[in-house]
Amino acid sequence: MIAAIIIPTFGACGLLFAAYYAFLTSLIRVDPKDKKYDAGDALRGARDISVSQKIFDISNAISTGARAFLSKEYQYMAVFIGLFSIILLLLLGLVHDWVAAVFSTVAFICGSLTSILAGYIGMRIAVYANSRTAIKAELGFGPGFVTAFRAGAVMGFSLVALGLIVLYFLIMLFNLHWPSAYGDHEATRLMYEALAGYGLGGSSIALFGRVGGGIYTKAADVGADLVGKYENHLNEDDPRNPAVIADNVGDNVGDIAGMGADLFGSFAEASCACMVISSQSVDLSASKDVMSFPLIIFAVGIMVSIVTSFIATNIKVVKTKNQIEPSLKTQIIVSTILMTPAAWLCCYYFLPHGEFTVSGMEGVTLIQIFVCICCGLWSGLIIGLITEYYTSSAYKPVQDLAESCRTGPATNIIYGLALGYLSNIIPVFCIAITIYITNKYAGMYGIATAAIGILSTLPIGLTIDAYGPICDNAGGIAEMAGMPDHVRERTDCLDAAGNTTAAIGKGFAIASAAFVSLALFGAFISTKGLTSVDILQPLQFAGLLVGAMLPYWFSAMTMKSVGKAALAMVKEVRRQFSEHPGILTGETPPDYERCVAISTSASLREMILPGALVMLTPLIAGFLFGPECLAGVLAGSLTSGVQLAISASNTGGAWDNAKKYIEAGALGPEHGKGSPEHEASIIGDTVGDPLKDTSGPALNILIKLMAIISLVFAPAMPGIGGGLLVQTHH
Amino acid sequence: MIAAIIIPTFGACGLLFAAYYAFLTSLIRVDPKDKKYDAGDALRGARDISVSQKIFDISNAISTGARAFLSKEYQYMAVFIGLFSIILLLLLGLVHDWVAAVFSTVAFICGSLTSILAGYIGMRIAVYANSRTAIKAELGFGPGFVTAFRAGAVMGFSLVALGLIVLYFLIMLFNLHWPSAYGDHEATRLMYEALAGYGLGGSSIALFGRVGGGIYTKAADVGADLVGKYENHLNEDDPRNPAVIADNVGDNVGDIAGMGADLFGSFAEASCACMVISSQSVDLSASKDVMSFPLIIFAVGIMVSIVTSFIATNIKVVKTKNQIEPSLKTQIIVSTILMTPAAWLCCYYFLPHGEFTVSGMEGVTLIQIFVCICCGLWSGLIIGLITEYYTSSAYKPVQDLAESCRTGPATNIIYGLALGYLSNIIPVFCIAITIYITNKYAGMYGIATAAIGILSTLPIGLTIDAYGPICDNAGGIAEMAGMPDHVRERTDCLDAAGNTTAAIGKGFAIASAAFVSLALFGAFISTKGLTSVDILQPLQFAGLLVGAMLPYWFSAMTMKSVGKAALAMVKEVRRQFSEHPGILTGETPPDYERCVAISTSASLREMILPGALVMLTPLIAGFLFGPECLAGVLAGSLTSGVQLAISASNTGGAWDNAKKYIEAGALGPEHGKGSPEHEASIIGDTVGDPLKDTSGPALNILIKLMAIISLVFAPAMPGIGGGLLVQTHH
Repeated sequence: MIAAIIIPTFGACGLLFAAYYAFLTSLIRVDPKDKKYDAGDALRGARDISVSQKIFDISNAISTGARAFLSKEYQYMAVFIGLFSIILLLLLGLVHDWVAAVFSTVAFICGSLTSILAGYIGMRIAVYANSRTAIKAELGFGPGFVTAFRAGAVMGFSLVALGLIVLYFLIMLFNLHWPSAYGDHEATRLMYEALAGYGLGGSSIALFGRVGGGIYTKAADVGADLVGKYENHLNEDDPRNPAVIADNVGDNVGDIAGMGADLFGSFAEASCACMVISSQSVDLSASKDVMSFPLIIFAVGIMVSIVTSFIATNIKVVKTKNQIEPSLKTQIIVSTILMTPAAWLCCYYFLPHGEFTVSGMEGVTLIQIFVCICCGLWSGLIIGLITEYYTSSAYKPVQDLAESCRTGPATNIIYGLALGYLSNIIPVFCIAITIYITNKYAGMYGIATAAIGILSTLPIGLTIDAYGPICDNAGGIAEMAGMPDHVRERTDCLDAAGNTTAAIGKGFAIASAAFVSLALFGAFISTKGLTSVDILQPLQFAGLLVGAMLPYWFSAMTMKSVGKAALAMVKEVRRQFSEHPGILTGETPPDYERCVAISTSASLREMILPGALVMLTPLIAGFLFGPECLAGVLAGSLTSGVQLAISASNTGGAWDNAKKYIEAGALGPEHGKGSPEHEASIIGDTVGDPLKDTSGPALNILIKLMAIISLVFAPAMPGIGGGLLVQTHH
Repeated sequence: MIAAIIIPTFGACGLLFAAYYAFLTSLIRVDPKDKKYDAGDALRGARDISVSQKIFDISNAISTGARAFLSKEYQYMAVFIGLFSIILLLLLGLVHDWVAAVFSTVAFICGSLTSILAGYIGMRIAVYANSRTAIKAELGFGPGFVTAFRAGAVMGFSLVALGLIVLYFLIMLFNLHWPSAYGDHEATRLMYEALAGYGLGGSSIALFGRVGGGIYTKAADVGADLVGKYENHLNEDDPRNPAVIADNVGDNVGDIAGMGADLFGSFAEASCACMVISSQSVDLSASKDVMSFPLIIFAVGIMVSIVTSFIATNIKVVKTKNQIEPSLKTQIIVSTILMTPAAWLCCYYFLPHGEFTVSGMEGVTLIQIFVCICCGLWSGLIIGLITEYYTSSAYKPVQDLAESCRTGPATNIIYGLALGYLSNIIPVFCIAITIYITNKYAGMYGIATAAIGILSTLPIGLTIDAYGPICDNAGGIAEMAGMPDHVRERTDCLDAAGNTTAAIGKGFAIASAAFVSLALFGAFISTKGLTSVDILQPLQFAGLLVGAMLPYWFSAMTMKSVGKAALAMVKEVRRQFSEHPGILTGETPPDYERCVAISTSASLREMILPGALVMLTPLIAGFLFGPECLAGVLAGSLTSGVQLAISASNTGGAWDNAKKYIEAGALGPEHGKGSPEHEASIIGDTVGDPLKDTSGPALNILIKLMAIISLVFAPAMPGIGGGLLVQTHH
């Protein structure tokens, strides 16, 4: 029962650590009327007192906009959670078992609410920290960096710790109240199957966060750019642009809440998949400590992440702009290195020391499981570094891409697409080798532990992901409030490093999504008792082909959604400019709130169709065509979705950084800002925006959500031999 | 033995028909010094005699350029065929069986040479007919249309008839000389396995045609545009542009020879796959007539196509420009309708009337096979019509795409990519349903007959495909020779219809490639005795994932190849302009031949890497990791390649037609040629060019060639249980 001590304790440590960083952030006062406001800071930064007031006001506007989005989104989510709970309860209850149905629904609601809470904390701290980062950036790179990093850590640590603690207490609750009439092993198995509802809850909220949030952020961004930059020649983040607050809110909605919900979903699903698979093993399900193994890894991962984060904030603090990117990269590398022996200790102390049988494999040893975890952990690192290679302007691919702008936008687009395609090669080999090794060593359990491995250092990953948009917003505030130029330059440097790490984060998110959904796929397979998925069979191959098409369909839908939502924004901004000509001259303040409201409702409306595609496909395939066909669909969407997601997010990241590279004058003094080369690079960047921030990351949700829905509804689905519409005869 | 009469007779009819149309084309004289030159034609077309001389000269230049490319390509091909024959002979001979090795190699060489011959005929007639089409277009739409259509038919009919006759006599030769020591059924099986070398030969040449030719045509096109249009503001087809002849040669190299070689490969592979599978059935391999069933379908298809083509040339002749596209579409629809009862007759007279066993399915009847053929035949038509919907400016998708140009090139690119993704949905469902039905009815034999079905009206499909580039070239000649404006307008109308049918042809080529490679996959599976391909196994799933990545890798390689080859062209054109300033003023004639030579060598050099990827992957996967892994790779590359190919070719086609739609003034008088909307549409078109003409169609070769290589080398590969590097234990 050491697990019963370690998991809540380490989880609490994570929460306390997040609270401590939140407290440190709150010490920075931004309201000039606040008694504790440090006017000396402003003086040292050569800032006017009226500027201070502006910073405070803009920060409040972003905060209000973010709250407006959240409260609207919560209404949608409440309806969704309510309706889906009823469907889940009735479908599982009527076809399968009422006890399992009730517990699944409880787990689903818990998962949803935890994800919402974690997202809320992340959004609050991010909008709270952006003005503080701007103020601290006045004093130098170091203070600005530390402020943004700490705020990111609040998000990262509280999300993982919250998820861990809630999941742990949910298991305890289930253990106490689950009727033991089923007999011991069978009862455990059914209980953990019901627990998978937790993963479903997390993943459903991620659908809102990633897809809805992704549409929001790019609709606001593209809408603001199209009317502001192209039609009226305003700068980025010009306060006269009515859509500018929506754009800044979008960074938080998409990149903080969306990314957080996505990875919370991965965390919840990986844990559930691992526990469902181990509950089917007689050897593993006997001990509660062994069953909690994935949670122990996450708990230890929190401690490893706390240690790692001290390097950035206390030991090797950033002083110059060249230290920013290495400092963030060090975080990822150090956490991976530290996690390796820590994972060994977990395996050694919590897994059976003899040979055991799991997911149909006999003679599995704890050393093999350790290798599986390491495969996940280290392939995450390798994929991250490869992503950096393809998206950072420090390396050849982006430099070549910038060169291609010399012959115009078309060559930039062609080379960018090719770059994204090429960036698939090593990550896919990495994933394939990991799957091969882990599957060979421990079947689907091996794959599930690889997913746990890649996610074990999640607090650090999330910290770095959240860091970027906070700096981005800090830059926006500095521009809008008219802070001195050197502040904007500093926040730009902080943000540029954030762009690269954002790309790394996306690569990491996709790789983890691949492992997680494969683990869920494995859990689904063993729940349905399928011993093979033979693609020579008609239904399976047809499923594979259609499944491979789904990511294209889904991407097209999200890309068009961004277009439609952006158009709604364009119309609103045009209306404001024409009805109130004073806005452009700076005499009349624009109506920011209306733009926020339009982006909010457009994004939530536009996510319904893609969301329906993701949620209905596994149900239609599973119930009408049977589990064999659904297995084909899942495998197809997984294999094709990974490729499309990696190439979309890397292409977009590379275009963005190629533009920055050209702006920095790398092609020569006459080929910088305002040159035809720069124009060409802007077109690439605009094309890349929805690819890297909407459709690419949304594919993670597609492959994970389809898999977890299959798993949760598996008990209610027809058995082997086709579905309600098609029967197969063997 | 009715087959022994029907196949050579109908094949000969096809050849005679092609010869008759070639004769009719030759009656049009273009050399003004020719005694039979019809000066009246020129007078009626209000053309100067010096223009006549120019037409003749330009036509000759294109012809010389095409010959230069071909002779260079033949050198490469000769080396390749020689080397590959030795590898094939030694590998199969040493590991498997020397008799099979010799026969496979003979079949390989026959297939290669037939494909080369068919391609040569196609290229010759195309470059022969382009000036004649231009001359006839002076007299009206009808004469121009008929000239181009007839020339296309020469290509279409001679290719299929030649392939059919050579394959038939090869089978007779094999039957005569194959040692019967193996025992009856086993001997037949091994003999047909060796025959698969014919398909390999056809497909290898298609690699040169589609990939090398695809790089050639777009390198010349993009290179000519970049220096000509952007840097020196020359019109399309301006004779002062040194790359203009290379551009015109490229149309023939890529769209005539490449498309022809691709579909010849499909024809040869589908026939071989079908015969390999039927040779493994004791019921079917007993009768030579039944074994020749696929050839009978093709033979009957030739006659159906002859009847169909009379509608276009004699019954409903085109008179106005609005009749062009419907006339071509009628060809496809009528040939499909006529082929349906013809296929029934073939099934009724040549398949066993009782139940038989084939590819592991018992109780198969001729009615089921007829349904399989119809599934292929009609899904080809449906996919063609859907392709038309997504790429013709007569429908909403392209019109919306043109509208998106109002907000700049970036939205055009985003909407175009989304359009391509969406255009996957129905074709993939079509293919999946066909695979499901045919696989359920008759296993892999069903899929193979579906492939035969979709290809049965190939002569008509090829005719229409070849029609487009001939009209395109006719337009180029009209422009360069300075023919009256109405001639160029007419050839533009003829060409615009050709663009749409080219897209249909591409959709058809991809769908047939999918069926063909699946049939080859099936033949490979049964040759290796695999009874299932279980993707839950580590090797199979890893193979699936890596296989799904290959189309991205391959596409990126071909896209970059186009870029590199285009750059070589740009440098050469710039050099000519700077060294001879008289070229731009029209005083000095440019050096066309050098541009042709540069495009030729660059394209052939740049195809080596992608070619190596395609040819080595199945060998590495099969020999090192075993047939199970290779099966995964093939399935993965097939499922992912189909999606990527369809979306690439439809996106490109849609961008091209959106540009034409805007040029026609559909967005309003101020938004036509020269407007920002037009600029945006040009960027889309330029991005789409390599997608639709190089990387998209080249994916057909990827999926087919990998499958046929697997099949041909299957006997030499390790058996079930892993490969040389990795063993699996069951």
